[in-house]
Amino acid sequence: MCQLLGMNANTPTDVMFSFAGLSARAEEHKDGFGVAFFEDRGLRLFVDSASARQSPVAELIRRWPIRSEHVIAHIRKATQGQVALRNTHPFMRELWGRYWVFAHNGHLEGFSPRLHAAFRPVGDTDSERAFCWLLQELAKAHADVPAVEELGRTLRELLPQLAAHGTFNMLLSDGRALWAHASTRLWSLQRAHPFGAATLADEDLTVDFAPLTTPQDRVCIVATEPLTQGEAWSAFAAGELRMFQGGRQLPRT
Amino acid sequence: MCQLLGMNANTPTDVMFSFAGLSARAEEHKDGFGVAFFEDRGLRLFVDSASARQSPVAELIRRWPIRSEHVIAHIRKATQGQVALRNTHPFMRELWGRYWVFAHNGHLEGFSPRLHAAFRPVGDTDSERAFCWLLQELAKAHADVPAVEELGRTLRELLPQLAAHGTFNMLLSDGRALWAHASTRLWSLQRAHPFGAATLADEDLTVDFAPLTTPQDRVCIVATEPLTQGEAWSAFAAGELRMFQGGRQLPRT
Repeated sequence: MCQLLGMNANTPTDVMFSFAGLSARAEEHKDGFGVAFFEDRGLRLFVDSASARQSPVAELIRRWPIRSEHVIAHIRKATQGQVALRNTHPFMRELWGRYWVFAHNGHLEGFSPRLHAAFRPVGDTDSERAFCWLLQELAKAHADVPAVEELGRTLRELLPQLAAHGTFNMLLSDGRALWAHASTRLWSLQRAHPFGAATLADEDLTVDFAPLTTPQDRVCIVATEPLTQGEAWSAFAAGELRMFQGGRQLPRT
Repeated sequence: MCQLLGMNANTPTDVMFSFAGLSARAEEHKDGFGVAFFEDRGLRLFVDSASARQSPVAELIRRWPIRSEHVIAHIRKATQGQVALRNTHPFMRELWGRYWVFAHNGHLEGFSPRLHAAFRPVGDTDSERAFCWLLQELAKAHADVPAVEELGRTLRELLPQLAAHGTFNMLLSDGRALWAHASTRLWSLQRAHPFGAATLADEDLTVDFAPLTTPQDRVCIVATEPLTQGEAWSAFAAGELRMFQGGRQLPRT
């Protein structure tokens, strides 16, 4: 199964610790990986069809503290589409003058929607097809970029149509917020004052966040499986959409 | 002035040598840089708003032989739009199920076209505006992806409309070919059998391509200024569009 990682913070934060945890799982998910870091409306998107264990790009990300308020990462285990750069998540498109980044875990059966608008897949995955359909439907529903909660309401109408085709755990961001939907498996966690230490579940690595943070910092992490031991990870319900902005989970409206 | 670098080859080729030459010029062009590498229809796009002299991403590109048949690189000296990731070339969009990559050198005055289609700028540059307009007009002219020469004919109609607003030297690729247009300054070069040695114009670095190549290899390089000494660089005429495919310049049709 692919692994997802999302991060939303109220201050630019690096994901070196979480990415180390994620890429520790790359042994069995060696079909490429990608990480998208927003910087305001701008975007750095790193993708590689090599394993996150060996890739020089992954090495760069583990060592270089790229700070961002919105991060989406994905480690791939190919189920549909060959191992190739064009099939590597996260995918990126522009809509309403903003970049949109999407990563998916799961598998959709018999999903061949009519793509009649401006978004067409470059690769061969069900995931990119779902992303193109989602943007097409969002563009139909809103003439210009809607507020975060408003977009959440539209997603709540659209996502069940995708999830009806199989497993649809996904992360979506436009650099304002992080939308996370689980159909089978997704967990989230908030770290805030008072910060403590956390130990990766898969690697012998502990970080004490207290000296690295200020009392105002808040960060939410979303992942396929809890990345750490001893922190209060919260499981998504089936079909649940969570929205994160400013390092906080937004209340459902 | 910004610096452009394009590469088109008939076999996956790295640009470490040329990128070293380009980034030697980054001292006076310290407002960010970017490099796009196609891998079939897939794309690696590295951008940084730091100087190519200091950026860890540039360091990665100088050291890691990423092989590609189509490369577009850009080193920025900001004239319009602040120094920020969203303003860093090359820009990327999807059209007809292919990624399109664009980089521009120059400055357009009073260019505010009506952008009524699916392509809108994320940043604040005249360059990204020009790219969005170009894709909008290409999408109107062709229902699906046209042949390389056919697209060249459409570009020959569209590009003068951009160049009328100022300086418009640009590189464009979709992973099949490289289109290069000069309004003031662009040079190209073909390297083919028998390969010899080349010395960078700006750095004390010489590479002998002979042991690194086969007699079948062909590569074309396009750059704002000749990157090497003692090779047969050919200057573009004002308003000239050159098309490169398979490491060859295509004849004008």
